[in-house]
Amino acid sequence: MSITIDLNSDLGESFGQWTMGDDAAILKVVSSANVACGFHAGSPAGLLDTLRAARAQGVAVGAHVSYPDLVGFGRRSMDIASDELTADVIYQIGALQGLARAAGTSVRYVKPHGALYNTIAHDERQAAAVIDGILAVDANLPLVGLAGSKILEWAAQKGLRVISEAFADRAYHADGTLVVRREPGSVIHDPQTVAQRMLQLITQGGINSVEGIFTPIQADSICVHGDTPGAVEMARRVRQLLEEQGIAVKSFVG
Amino acid sequence: MSITIDLNSDLGESFGQWTMGDDAAILKVVSSANVACGFHAGSPAGLLDTLRAARAQGVAVGAHVSYPDLVGFGRRSMDIASDELTADVIYQIGALQGLARAAGTSVRYVKPHGALYNTIAHDERQAAAVIDGILAVDANLPLVGLAGSKILEWAAQKGLRVISEAFADRAYHADGTLVVRREPGSVIHDPQTVAQRMLQLITQGGINSVEGIFTPIQADSICVHGDTPGAVEMARRVRQLLEEQGIAVKSFVG
Amino acid sequence: MSITIDLNSDLGESFGQWTMGDDAAILKVVSSANVACGFHAGSPAGLLDTLRAARAQGVAVGAHVSYPDLVGFGRRSMDIASDELTADVIYQIGALQGLARAAGTSVRYVKPHGALYNTIAHDERQAAAVIDGILAVDANLPLVGLAGSKILEWAAQKGLRVISEAFADRAYHADGTLVVRREPGSVIHDPQTVAQRMLQLITQGGINSVEGIFTPIQADSICVHGDTPGAVEMARRVRQLLEEQGIAVKSFVG
Amino acid sequence: MSITIDLNSDLGESFGQWTMGDDAAILKVVSSANVACGFHAGSPAGLLDTLRAARAQGVAVGAHVSYPDLVGFGRRSMDIASDELTADVIYQIGALQGLARAAGTSVRYVKPHGALYNTIAHDERQAAAVIDGILAVDANLPLVGLAGSKILEWAAQKGLRVISEAFADRAYHADGTLVVRREPGSVIHDPQTVAQRMLQLITQGGINSVEGIFTPIQADSICVHGDTPGAVEMARRVRQLLEEQGIAVKSFVG
Repeated sequence: MSITIDLNSDLGESFGQWTMGDDAAILKVVSSANVACGFHAGSPAGLLDTLRAARAQGVAVGAHVSYPDLVGFGRRSMDIASDELTADVIYQIGALQGLARAAGTSVRYVKPHGALYNTIAHDERQAAAVIDGILAVDANLPLVGLAGSKILEWAAQKGLRVISEAFADRAYHADGTLVVRREPGSVIHDPQTVAQRMLQLITQGGINSVEGIFTPIQADSICVHGDTPGAVEMARRVRQLLEEQGIAVKSFVG
Repeated sequence: MSITIDLNSDLGESFGQWTMGDDAAILKVVSSANVACGFHAGSPAGLLDTLRAARAQGVAVGAHVSYPDLVGFGRRSMDIASDELTADVIYQIGALQGLARAAGTSVRYVKPHGALYNTIAHDERQAAAVIDGILAVDANLPLVGLAGSKILEWAAQKGLRVISEAFADRAYHADGTLVVRREPGSVIHDPQTVAQRMLQLITQGGINSVEGIFTPIQADSICVHGDTPGAVEMARRVRQLLEEQGIAVKSFVG
Repeated sequence: MSITIDLNSDLGESFGQWTMGDDAAILKVVSSANVACGFHAGSPAGLLDTLRAARAQGVAVGAHVSYPDLVGFGRRSMDIASDELTADVIYQIGALQGLARAAGTSVRYVKPHGALYNTIAHDERQAAAVIDGILAVDANLPLVGLAGSKILEWAAQKGLRVISEAFADRAYHADGTLVVRREPGSVIHDPQTVAQRMLQLITQGGINSVEGIFTPIQADSICVHGDTPGAVEMARRVRQLLEEQGIAVKSFVG
Repeated sequence: MSITIDLNSDLGESFGQWTMGDDAAILKVVSSANVACGFHAGSPAGLLDTLRAARAQGVAVGAHVSYPDLVGFGRRSMDIASDELTADVIYQIGALQGLARAAGTSVRYVKPHGALYNTIAHDERQAAAVIDGILAVDANLPLVGLAGSKILEWAAQKGLRVISEAFADRAYHADGTLVVRREPGSVIHDPQTVAQRMLQLITQGGINSVEGIFTPIQADSICVHGDTPGAVEMARRVRQLLEEQGIAVKSFVG
């Protein structure tokens, strides 16, 4: 019997002449690529390049849907009407499906981005709008969300397959919630520590919280970053340690 | 034996709070709806409404792809790189396919919009980029283009089905080209005259040119407008006269 | 001794090929034009036309600054960083100042639009960001805000001249707050009733609330609409009644 | 008697979360900063930072106006109507003036960007539209254009002060035109060669062309780049050699 885990990262976040992240480097590390859909980042020609590279590396592609907010990179929460949010989600998934088809691959899951990701973790109205968008375009697409958040319950109730994710470099409270970014110690910078924590997460089903108590966290996927050379190096270290321990890195979509 | 003809019109050209055209009215007249894809017009929620209405009326949906130019409504020719244009076409078709699926219908053809439509009628590089985009996303989607233009040849050579269209309210030269808009008499305003000309086009395979000579025009579809009450009325008159003469209005996609 | 009041309305809200409102008609009624700055509406060429028309009518021009949200028409509240909001306000005022100069007029005040208007009525952080933007570009520009709202206090404390406005067609509670739009009776549709209420507002310093109690409201300006023929007609009726009663319609900037 | 020359470079070309160029580094080298205005690059908060840095370094600020084309970075020529182009130029200059005022500096000149720069070098209609825009907002703003191009004549005829510029790292033909970028040898990569050529340009009034003939070029300013570490280093080398030879680097606006 073998243990596997998915590693996911955000890709396709360049825009026109502006580049962000090293998609080629991180594609060698992860099993799932959350690819931007043009609303917070990603112009079509660049996205096509990213999708072709994902296909070449055998990495599963997900639609990284966002609020319509290029200048804010999708990081500003917006009070958007439900029907507009639903249609925005459908539009983005469809656009990425078209590009994916052209690249010889396909969209296998949906992961909301940035402020939308955070908002739907707790806001039932916007969560429902996102879920409705996925159901309308393809009810078989799993939704990736924050481990322990309400969106996973709501999506499962409506019949979506849900994928629970943990953040490799983030500290957790004893109740399983993330330490907010403005708190000291919220982000862990040492690659070896991060890798050890992820090993613990997989093998023990939880990690040590900032309160010093072991916290159970059920995670189907681990989110790593690829936007700096240091981030890519950390992601590599996580993968390396897991593989050394016999844990295979493999997409949840098989 | 029965004669049929397709009537097509541009739809979904509202954007956010701004409305354009009377989609509900024109959907009762045409057999094909060229639906905007967000690059010159069309925000996702409004497009979804238009697509649902098209489905309810049994009107075939086409992707009305454009240059990325909201403020110029896609009416400014742009010197865009081929790979960017190809990817823009794929993105737009994919986005509309997603919305169409959510609306219970599907994208059945592609018709470039505005300045892109005019440019690819003669510009081989940009024409090739558009054709490549369609082939990459779905090689079975027909391309609608100007009767007698080069794009139809180029697209057919690459294996696309091509649909040749005439403009109901435009005057033609003896060589089959359109009288340019800035010339007096380029646009015909009388609904009855327009309807009679379209009847002639279908039954005789051509129309009277401004030079007074009968000009052969091979047209699989007739483009009518729906952006003003007068335009809708003219479109109705065309359809009415054709039906009175036993010519059924029916999409080329069956 | 004469009594004067300012009437203001939103203008320049077309965008490219999309039109909204009848700027020419409402300019004959109001003394102040809140002109869009391109972030929720208004493309430069159209704005220039509106500004020239405002100058020709002798109507004072204000910068109708917004969140950056064309597709949402600036009606979605956004959680935007303070330095970004401040810079957005400066950019918009500057852009409109440039266009106003080209049109032979000038920007005389600032009125935030839509969701931004509502948010800064109570959100101190965003209010401060808007105030800082005005101070940075021209500390002499008055700020127009909702009568009784906190933004007027905060702006006055920082040295801005503040202009308090009432809404002609809205119902008020006894505590001076607006009845929210989703409540029945929140919007008054009869032009004569609206005009009589505004006369009461000016001559008695308040209006009858939905609770039946007279509510004091201090208003330097009255906001009327011009986006429909009915709205323009209502605005005309307000002006007519006020002038019949010897109250002159005149901008607060003289 | 002293010789001075202006060095100019493009700045403020980041957008939201995407960065481009090292504005801090290049500001230590140049005397004039062509600052983006939001149409091809530059979001307000980032532009404000760039303008503050320019002021701190005593570098003159110019408005780097562009076609409205973020995704194409203003590098695609567009067939835009004259009144729209004029208004776009006014809007951009005004927006940058607002931000400049907030940063304690001011806009001192205008330099069109990218495809617009190239188009107006020879296209009289678009050139006139740009000139009209500058005249409308501030007739005292000099226009920077390509040495030897028609735009300089046209602008001078309409009363604008014109600034003629050469490109430090570009090869020239014997007739004074630039070798187009797709030709081998069009761009010179060796910093020392570039610096020597610019010294020759200033002291001899021309440079050696690719045809081997000395070509007279009248240049009031030299354009250098700051978008890569190598480019900044080259710019530094140009400045250093000029200063070693007693030529002061100084803005043309004094």
